[in-house]
Amino acid sequence: MPRIGRASLDQQVNPPKLMYLDDLYVGQQFSSSEYRMEPERMKSFAAEFDPQPFHLDEEAARNSVFRGLSASGWHTAAATMRLLVTGGLPFAGGMIGLGGEIAWSKPTRAGDILQVKSEILDIAPSRSKPNQGIVTVRSVTANQAGEQLQVLTSKILVFKRKQTV
Amino acid sequence: MPRIGRASLDQQVNPPKLMYLDDLYVGQQFSSSEYRMEPERMKSFAAEFDPQPFHLDEEAARNSVFRGLSASGWHTAAATMRLLVTGGLPFAGGMIGLGGEIAWSKPTRAGDILQVKSEILDIAPSRSKPNQGIVTVRSVTANQAGEQLQVLTSKILVFKRKQTV
Repeated sequence: MPRIGRASLDQQVNPPKLMYLDDLYVGQQFSSSEYRMEPERMKSFAAEFDPQPFHLDEEAARNSVFRGLSASGWHTAAATMRLLVTGGLPFAGGMIGLGGEIAWSKPTRAGDILQVKSEILDIAPSRSKPNQGIVTVRSVTANQAGEQLQVLTSKILVFKRKQTV
Repeated sequence: MPRIGRASLDQQVNPPKLMYLDDLYVGQQFSSSEYRMEPERMKSFAAEFDPQPFHLDEEAARNSVFRGLSASGWHTAAATMRLLVTGGLPFAGGMIGLGGEIAWSKPTRAGDILQVKSEILDIAPSRSKPNQGIVTVRSVTANQAGEQLQVLTSKILVFKRKQTV
């Protein structure tokens, strides 16, 4: 079973309106719900995908450049994706990413409660496929203290609303 | 328990020599071992971090732009990290990524066997910290057919060998 956080509950209570390319504009902002980074999940994620001592063991972590246990950056990225998909970016047709830039400004710590705020930077309608476009979005993942942990600038495929003839 | 693939076995049999900043040069190439994308793990990863119908359900996937079940791009990224950490980039002190650019060229399919080939693009010694530098590495993740699935260009903190006085 996937871990169900506060995020999912919020979505059930208050599902966001799904948006099409037609509804989007540069400068538009979105805010996700929250996701708590559990220490045991941080370690098991790292054991599977990023098995380095400073992500697995408190003692090794204290003696590393991180000065304490931190999540794999890819775990922060995956948690960010969950927040975007479950309402943080309510695009109709889903969140189909073509790629992007990612930067980790600070380590994600055990117990951090993540929230993602996004802003549309650019909208490029497709020339070859008139029913879709590429939207560039900047998503900042912060913790409960408002500290910026990750900045992701991604290119997302978004569809136009179907025309009713 | 983390999933142990062929990668881990290779590492135990033939551990790579750990490299310091002093040992690296632009154009240097590295090759990882292999990692198989299991369909059940693809679905459980997506259920936790990227719960979109086309990553969870074969039928929904067939009717999507992906034309069949595919892994979350973040699962491909996480598997790539595992391959880099377990010998694909044998840097002493570990693989401390500051960020980078990621692009998914093709969907990762169930049963795909991933391998990562990396090349050093740039080495920038730190001015403020003479014992470390930032190495830019381009890592291409391909499947068993040689199809390029992901390109990651990352900036990694690498340490110099300790001087013996």
